[in-house]
Amino acid sequence: MSRLNREDAAMLLIDHQVGLLSLVRDFTPAEFKNNVMAVADTAKHFNLPTVLTTSFEQGPNGVLLPEIRRMFPNAPFIPRPGQINAWDNEDFVKAVKATGRKQLVIAGIVTEVCVAFPALSALNEGFEVFVVVDASGTFNKTTRNAAIARMQQAGAQMITWFAMASELQRDWRDNGDGLKKIYCDHLLEYDALVVAHDAEK
Amino acid sequence: MSRLNREDAAMLLIDHQVGLLSLVRDFTPAEFKNNVMAVADTAKHFNLPTVLTTSFEQGPNGVLLPEIRRMFPNAPFIPRPGQINAWDNEDFVKAVKATGRKQLVIAGIVTEVCVAFPALSALNEGFEVFVVVDASGTFNKTTRNAAIARMQQAGAQMITWFAMASELQRDWRDNGDGLKKIYCDHLLEYDALVVAHDAEK
Amino acid sequence: MSRLNREDAAMLLIDHQVGLLSLVRDFTPAEFKNNVMAVADTAKHFNLPTVLTTSFEQGPNGVLLPEIRRMFPNAPFIPRPGQINAWDNEDFVKAVKATGRKQLVIAGIVTEVCVAFPALSALNEGFEVFVVVDASGTFNKTTRNAAIARMQQAGAQMITWFAMASELQRDWRDNGDGLKKIYCDHLLEYDALVVAHDAEK
Amino acid sequence: MSRLNREDAAMLLIDHQVGLLSLVRDFTPAEFKNNVMAVADTAKHFNLPTVLTTSFEQGPNGVLLPEIRRMFPNAPFIPRPGQINAWDNEDFVKAVKATGRKQLVIAGIVTEVCVAFPALSALNEGFEVFVVVDASGTFNKTTRNAAIARMQQAGAQMITWFAMASELQRDWRDNGDGLKKIYCDHLLEYDALVVAHDAEK
Amino acid sequence: MSRLNREDAAMLLIDHQVGLLSLVRDFTPAEFKNNVMAVADTAKHFNLPTVLTTSFEQGPNGVLLPEIRRMFPNAPFIPRPGQINAWDNEDFVKAVKATGRKQLVIAGIVTEVCVAFPALSALNEGFEVFVVVDASGTFNKTTRNAAIARMQQAGAQMITWFAMASELQRDWRDNGDGLKKIYCDHLLEYDALVVAHDAEK
Amino acid sequence: MSRLNREDAAMLLIDHQVGLLSLVRDFTPAEFKNNVMAVADTAKHFNLPTVLTTSFEQGPNGVLLPEIRRMFPNAPFIPRPGQINAWDNEDFVKAVKATGRKQLVIAGIVTEVCVAFPALSALNEGFEVFVVVDASGTFNKTTRNAAIARMQQAGAQMITWFAMASELQRDWRDNGDGLKKIYCDHLLEYDALVVAHDAEK
Amino acid sequence: MSRLNREDAAMLLIDHQVGLLSLVRDFTPAEFKNNVMAVADTAKHFNLPTVLTTSFEQGPNGVLLPEIRRMFPNAPFIPRPGQINAWDNEDFVKAVKATGRKQLVIAGIVTEVCVAFPALSALNEGFEVFVVVDASGTFNKTTRNAAIARMQQAGAQMITWFAMASELQRDWRDNGDGLKKIYCDHLLEYDALVVAHDAEK
Amino acid sequence: MSRLNREDAAMLLIDHQVGLLSLVRDFTPAEFKNNVMAVADTAKHFNLPTVLTTSFEQGPNGVLLPEIRRMFPNAPFIPRPGQINAWDNEDFVKAVKATGRKQLVIAGIVTEVCVAFPALSALNEGFEVFVVVDASGTFNKTTRNAAIARMQQAGAQMITWFAMASELQRDWRDNGDGLKKIYCDHLLEYDALVVAHDAEK
Repeated sequence: MSRLNREDAAMLLIDHQVGLLSLVRDFTPAEFKNNVMAVADTAKHFNLPTVLTTSFEQGPNGVLLPEIRRMFPNAPFIPRPGQINAWDNEDFVKAVKATGRKQLVIAGIVTEVCVAFPALSALNEGFEVFVVVDASGTFNKTTRNAAIARMQQAGAQMITWFAMASELQRDWRDNGDGLKKIYCDHLLEYDALVVAHDAEK
Repeated sequence: MSRLNREDAAMLLIDHQVGLLSLVRDFTPAEFKNNVMAVADTAKHFNLPTVLTTSFEQGPNGVLLPEIRRMFPNAPFIPRPGQINAWDNEDFVKAVKATGRKQLVIAGIVTEVCVAFPALSALNEGFEVFVVVDASGTFNKTTRNAAIARMQQAGAQMITWFAMASELQRDWRDNGDGLKKIYCDHLLEYDALVVAHDAEK
Repeated sequence: MSRLNREDAAMLLIDHQVGLLSLVRDFTPAEFKNNVMAVADTAKHFNLPTVLTTSFEQGPNGVLLPEIRRMFPNAPFIPRPGQINAWDNEDFVKAVKATGRKQLVIAGIVTEVCVAFPALSALNEGFEVFVVVDASGTFNKTTRNAAIARMQQAGAQMITWFAMASELQRDWRDNGDGLKKIYCDHLLEYDALVVAHDAEK
Repeated sequence: MSRLNREDAAMLLIDHQVGLLSLVRDFTPAEFKNNVMAVADTAKHFNLPTVLTTSFEQGPNGVLLPEIRRMFPNAPFIPRPGQINAWDNEDFVKAVKATGRKQLVIAGIVTEVCVAFPALSALNEGFEVFVVVDASGTFNKTTRNAAIARMQQAGAQMITWFAMASELQRDWRDNGDGLKKIYCDHLLEYDALVVAHDAEK
Repeated sequence: MSRLNREDAAMLLIDHQVGLLSLVRDFTPAEFKNNVMAVADTAKHFNLPTVLTTSFEQGPNGVLLPEIRRMFPNAPFIPRPGQINAWDNEDFVKAVKATGRKQLVIAGIVTEVCVAFPALSALNEGFEVFVVVDASGTFNKTTRNAAIARMQQAGAQMITWFAMASELQRDWRDNGDGLKKIYCDHLLEYDALVVAHDAEK
Repeated sequence: MSRLNREDAAMLLIDHQVGLLSLVRDFTPAEFKNNVMAVADTAKHFNLPTVLTTSFEQGPNGVLLPEIRRMFPNAPFIPRPGQINAWDNEDFVKAVKATGRKQLVIAGIVTEVCVAFPALSALNEGFEVFVVVDASGTFNKTTRNAAIARMQQAGAQMITWFAMASELQRDWRDNGDGLKKIYCDHLLEYDALVVAHDAEK
Repeated sequence: MSRLNREDAAMLLIDHQVGLLSLVRDFTPAEFKNNVMAVADTAKHFNLPTVLTTSFEQGPNGVLLPEIRRMFPNAPFIPRPGQINAWDNEDFVKAVKATGRKQLVIAGIVTEVCVAFPALSALNEGFEVFVVVDASGTFNKTTRNAAIARMQQAGAQMITWFAMASELQRDWRDNGDGLKKIYCDHLLEYDALVVAHDAEK
Repeated sequence: MSRLNREDAAMLLIDHQVGLLSLVRDFTPAEFKNNVMAVADTAKHFNLPTVLTTSFEQGPNGVLLPEIRRMFPNAPFIPRPGQINAWDNEDFVKAVKATGRKQLVIAGIVTEVCVAFPALSALNEGFEVFVVVDASGTFNKTTRNAAIARMQQAGAQMITWFAMASELQRDWRDNGDGLKKIYCDHLLEYDALVVAHDAEK
């Protein structure tokens, strides 16, 4: 199985909308938002080409998380007029292919639909798919586990934001301060270690 | 792996009987009945050919859930005289094959027997099998997990009622109100979003 | 400790608003809405004087659950202009006292604030307070337990909707069909028993 | 607080009916039935005067567990015609008082109604009440905890079947083999110790 | 994947010893012993050739559960002098092969060693292996899950005692009373259904 | 029982040190830090006199959370030279009494020692004590529950940061924007409601 | 409520026998033994008069943990000939009273019997009772919680070994190295902090 | 799938550093350290060639657990200057290859990075990989499960320290006392069995 790397990976953030956020119950709200922002920070830090998409922002699903929208002002942003599977939207697929990347890192809400459907479609077209399981949310753990099982069966690799950031980094000597900041901002137990360590110096 | 779609799918509802319902402990009773009715509503909304079967209605297993019986008055209904695996009943298999569909969506009680046995048999005969894990119930999570693992090993795809409904829908612009009603009726957190949204207008 | 009874009890439904519903995570959405509607049905069935109140319906808290609003068209309904503790609102207290009842049955969102604050205030004024713990929701179980402990310490009795309905009923021979309908509508495992039993006859 | 003892205690077994058993979800079925039978064996072994009662045996609640019925052929058995709180039934109270005991050990289904209501009533009349929490079952742990809290607030002592048996025994030298048999029959981990120990001899 | 059937299956009960029982913590003692006895009853009922083995009965592992020993007086019983993997013991393998069966149903203590090691060895020799996960016990769920995953990866099928009994039975009309008795003896919630049903007649 | 109010309350933040943070396991790190900062923000917003103390900052316990230190530059800060119970330190008690407040809101690490000991001592001296249970952390839930039970038994009231903020606020019309900001910063599910609501306008 | 202190406290270790250890399931074996040894180390370090007792060492309950036996060679050790409640044994009570202490710190197996019975008896005789909840074990959490509730109702204070050690210590400057060693030996997360801290120096 | 054996296996202990230990939350600290030391004892007992490595010992990750360092004074120890994946460090790979072993047993902190990355790399180079899941720790179970799934998908076998020790031992008659000591030191429930058994003799 291949490793995730900076030159090959693109980031797909799918339907992290404020209405849908209220449906996510397999993580606490604080954990989940932290994980989503960590993924976004990681994608930005490593300059991964990023594609944003939403489903019905004018309806109950609500707007895309404003923090994410602001963080990627120049990323292609495809509000889908109706397609549930983002891969059924031509503009989305065009934007993904325009990145020229063969590794797709996917996170979204809800896992078994908005993440799993495009993940399966992308695998069918020969992409390598990495799903960020802790930045993808759904109704409960039964639902999450069924979604993970289905995607794995089809060949997707399951990762977390921490594995994603670490795998993209490879070596601390290569601008490690950027990674350290991501760790400290989103992993409070690591931040405590750093504060304790710095205080000793 | 293939996608579930309206033209290829048939629905098999197996042994959702009132006595057996009392054996289901991997979901709360309210959750489970909600999921079962959501699957039934979804099958009906998308006009999936549906086959009903029961095991020993005169015995302790009890009658089929009356709501399901009423919802599919014209569906083939095969009360099995003794076969535990519905696929061992010729009439059942005949009814399934008469649908002309190659994708079988299965839900039932209990997961490791009434669902898993026909799922394995259908896979052996070349059908694609989708198991609705949250509309299939059993004694506890250990049992459920063993059943899911066995069916996956044999090639079945695990889905939930929400994934099933969404995958069949494909596009909100294609009579999305039907799907919205199913969501609102069976996903109370989504319904709350809709009420809140409508009140703002 | 006194028993809850029909002649002495009034029902206070506090802030069951659609926005606040999305904050409730100590129950699943399906469980919680079921419990809230069961309490409402019980209060209505036993003709308990009922007082409704909300906090900021125009804001993110959202409107009162429409089903509840419709069920009690003639109940005093006090949208509070700002008071967090409903008991700090004169109109609310006036409406409560106008019922002439000394037993207050309280349910609401969120437990440690919208339920606990008026419960403590009412106890201070000499009312008997019964809190319906499964129709009151909050962020998590730690929060719920702290709220329950505080209210108990002050003298409130913790009940559930099922205990409330049963305690008000006293005797099945006194129009037991009404109670049976409430049980069947909100306790699906009991409904399954009834269907199985009726089918045997 | 007083100790439970053989001379002062009576046993009240309330509504352990086969239909109601299917409602009990705060214990697994195997655990719960084991605990109920352990309480019955304990009461019988120590010759505690025992009172049996049921609610609507002809309805969905079903018949009293046959094993219990057979074990106490001569105990007063009061099928209640309608009263939910057994203490509202004159015959039941008469039977309880006829035992001449002041300590009432209570177990039943469901905890917050069939156990809690007579427990509160008996406390009001000056009895000492001991509730066997693991031989009393209900819908879920939230419900159980609310019931326990309410009964404790009113002065009832919470015990388990193991504490009950041990407290009644007092001293192993006083016919300890009877207690040992109860332990071995209902506490399989203890039985394993005994088998291992005996094999060493 | 093949179905389990009476003509092809043999039962291997490995190290269900009273000392080792105290190590099992992924099930409660009552649940676990019930499941083990259910597997034994099922094997006996369907006359599966059965092989018993133990590890160091004279040491802290303790003697084989006496009930199992008594139930299979004529089964080959191989107390292993030292081999941890039963498959490393020639007499055991000889006994297994002497059954002439190609489907091996395995249960034992502890799952990741006494079950997994012979399961992997038997798969290597071309047997079909069915592991009864709820009659195999170990230290905790992390350990159990690792063991299940390893065995599945190697091709073993995970089942439960209930699935085993049902799959061997095939049809209720073929001496269904035997199966019914096994269900009632080991599945108390099913027994309650039967008692309720019989009482109605 | 009295209500918490702005004029009577002082805030005691005890031993929220970076080393001790790593011991807290009854909350996830993200949840716990969020709760601690929410309490600090609340105390600051309502201008509660605040007292800070630490135990052995030079040792493994580590420095006080820098964010807290910076937020209260003028608060009395008592690094204790050895006393485990802060109330055994004269300077600390002097600082508490200098606030002139009779209601003490306490949070700290670890709950059963650094919170419980001064809570019990303060109760003994006649203060009203409110413990913020979700901003106080310890090794596990067993430990937390024992600590809460002991403090309650002695008369302390258990609250959460959300209840604290809401009880101090009393009325949204009294500078509600401050409270709203605290809610949005520390309660991400509420923030999502606000973003969704504002987007509708 | 009074504080635990070195001059007033005696330690009672009740029935920590190797057979009974296998019954303890509300803690993992590693956690529980660690807690028991931590309590023993604490009692020894602070020279609390300690009384040991066992029930039927020759039977399946097994011998007292050898480590405890060796640690207190001169402590009164009362093997009870039959009394289940240690307080029913005259020698035990005599030994307790001979310590001259009024605060009794109790830990044992199983919580609801071997701990609760003497705790209730001692409270009845006017002793202050502190129960070390994490060094007392039983069958499951339901049982533990019932036992804790009963003892609290009677006036016992619930503590943990960590609270016990810290409350006895009072001040780190008073031979703090002894306490530090107990912490490091039994609280591995604290030990890690110390190693990390020392490595920085 | 192949069996783990003494002649083919090498042990890789990766980043068991005191700072990182505080990040491990999928095990309790006592459980986790016990498991790590059990793995180390097992590797040492069976003389597996062992390679140690750390990441940034001078930084917040902290020093390698001193007990491990002392136990393998002659093992190659590679403090990595920056590589996150140990397999990206030439010296580490050289040390691994120098062992001449084809089976790599890996444990480390954190599972999804420090364990998973070299596991995937080693599998890519044709090694057999065995991951000790209970001696590898990470932030939570979601993260652990994702890591396990990914490694399994790539062909790694999941084991526990107990399975590892037992699989390497093969036969108790081959110096079984060494294994027995490892069991007794790290499996306290087994130790209790041994003490009980020895006391009977």
